[in-house]
Amino acid sequence: MQQPDVIVREVGLRDGLQSVATFFPTDAKLAWIDAEYDAGVREMQVCSFVPEKVFAQFRDCTEVVAHALKKPGLVVSAYVPNVKGAQRAFEAGVHLLGHVVSASEGHNRSNLKRTAADSIEDFRKIVELRDSRPDWQNVRLGGCVATAFGCTIDGRIDPDNVVRLAEQYVELGVDELMLADTVGFADPAHVKELFTRLKTEFGDISPSAHFHDTRGLGLANVVAALDAGVRRFDSCLAGLGGCPFAPGATGNIVTEDLVFMLEAMGRSTGIDVERLVEVRRIVENELPDEPLHSAIAAAGLPKGFAPSVSVD
Amino acid sequence: MQQPDVIVREVGLRDGLQSVATFFPTDAKLAWIDAEYDAGVREMQVCSFVPEKVFAQFRDCTEVVAHALKKPGLVVSAYVPNVKGAQRAFEAGVHLLGHVVSASEGHNRSNLKRTAADSIEDFRKIVELRDSRPDWQNVRLGGCVATAFGCTIDGRIDPDNVVRLAEQYVELGVDELMLADTVGFADPAHVKELFTRLKTEFGDISPSAHFHDTRGLGLANVVAALDAGVRRFDSCLAGLGGCPFAPGATGNIVTEDLVFMLEAMGRSTGIDVERLVEVRRIVENELPDEPLHSAIAAAGLPKGFAPSVSVD
Repeated sequence: MQQPDVIVREVGLRDGLQSVATFFPTDAKLAWIDAEYDAGVREMQVCSFVPEKVFAQFRDCTEVVAHALKKPGLVVSAYVPNVKGAQRAFEAGVHLLGHVVSASEGHNRSNLKRTAADSIEDFRKIVELRDSRPDWQNVRLGGCVATAFGCTIDGRIDPDNVVRLAEQYVELGVDELMLADTVGFADPAHVKELFTRLKTEFGDISPSAHFHDTRGLGLANVVAALDAGVRRFDSCLAGLGGCPFAPGATGNIVTEDLVFMLEAMGRSTGIDVERLVEVRRIVENELPDEPLHSAIAAAGLPKGFAPSVSVD
Repeated sequence: MQQPDVIVREVGLRDGLQSVATFFPTDAKLAWIDAEYDAGVREMQVCSFVPEKVFAQFRDCTEVVAHALKKPGLVVSAYVPNVKGAQRAFEAGVHLLGHVVSASEGHNRSNLKRTAADSIEDFRKIVELRDSRPDWQNVRLGGCVATAFGCTIDGRIDPDNVVRLAEQYVELGVDELMLADTVGFADPAHVKELFTRLKTEFGDISPSAHFHDTRGLGLANVVAALDAGVRRFDSCLAGLGGCPFAPGATGNIVTEDLVFMLEAMGRSTGIDVERLVEVRRIVENELPDEPLHSAIAAAGLPKGFAPSVSVD
């Protein structure tokens, strides 16, 4: 298969379900993975290796990862909050571990119960842990600077602080770098500026973007990030999600709307938007009371729409 | 007052109310104008000079225009579908008449019951009419190419056709040129390409943009248009509107979200977004059953938000 111009990573099974109190049945999670894979999605963050007593939603993460790993060509990633979670994720066999540090000390303390410096120290230990085992050498480590554009608790975030944390990740040998607008504070000018700066400072590592649509600027921010050279985006089917520790944070950008926009712009994603829209039914069935978002699901594709792929 | 970086023109009283069956009481229209003026809005399209039997909503247009004209520094515009409407608009004393031709023949016939060529011929007569009266010399004439990015009836629209119609407007001496994505078909790549082409071909005239948010790309399209040098945008408070003759067309981009995005990007609009959000109450009171949109009204301003203006 041809390499897509832009990689869309589905994070609904992690970031989306994280803020949903109802346990999403394991079978339905596997069906969701199957259906998105069939629609052409080739990167998914499928769960979070957090203690079961904190997030019962992810108590089946080993089983979910095992299922996802059976899909040829699917990059399976999981979020790990600490070394213990990383150990479990390595053992489960995920391809990419996602670690997070918050540019806002207030958010880091609230979200991870430690300082940003402690989180970076955790990441160092995760790198050591990987390097200690020959069979884990190919596992990629992702570092994400959260609340990079602002924070509900701390307000404005100094860009120097974001760059400093990114630098620490890079020094520790991060394989993927990401900036997250965890609570929907980013605007297109800020996005373009910060990603351009990152590209200048860390030329070898092409950063990814994780946007929320809290204030309606999610896709506008994607346009700005594309302009700054970003080619990998996180998103959630139906715009599920938020952040349980960040008051006022609402859903991630909507996968089906993101794919529609990129394909409409002539940027291939390898994903069939019509099939993606159909996957919503799985979520609707399990979460009838959860608000699901998507402009393209509501309006339908425009007449004459010519996507780069059709999976059928 | 300092000239804003970007001009936001409120078209809710025209494009918004056009698709609302309930008559919006005249007093409430005047209150809406007053409240948006107080929030800093300095351009408004306040009505449509269409036959009363077609749009009862606009039966009070002369009164509404007379009220708006009392506001110092407010640019008052109205939509005119034909020469007869233009005559009434000139007599009412509007500052800017907005004329429309559709790049889609199917839409032009459905919307205006004539061919695009006939519409352009109408515009020529409107120019003549203005030039025939010394007291109308200062009235500006706007030409808008509708369905410039695609059409529910005709599908894809040839960009050459858009440029050809824009050229005819320019040859006839249009004062303002606009491209409208009447039915929400535009994507950021298309927007950037077409506006850049217009700027190249008609350097003297800086085109304006009129976007709908049908498929969730409204603000993403604004970012692309800004990149192409566009500095004037139409929008509707609460995202009211659509097009009664274009099936599936939903609301215009939301004024309060547009202003928030621009101010967050550091582009001054002269408009106080918090006061703008308060104006929604007038619309809510009169149209309790109409769906009102706005991410910023739902989420609130981000902590630390520093707009260019605060009217208070």
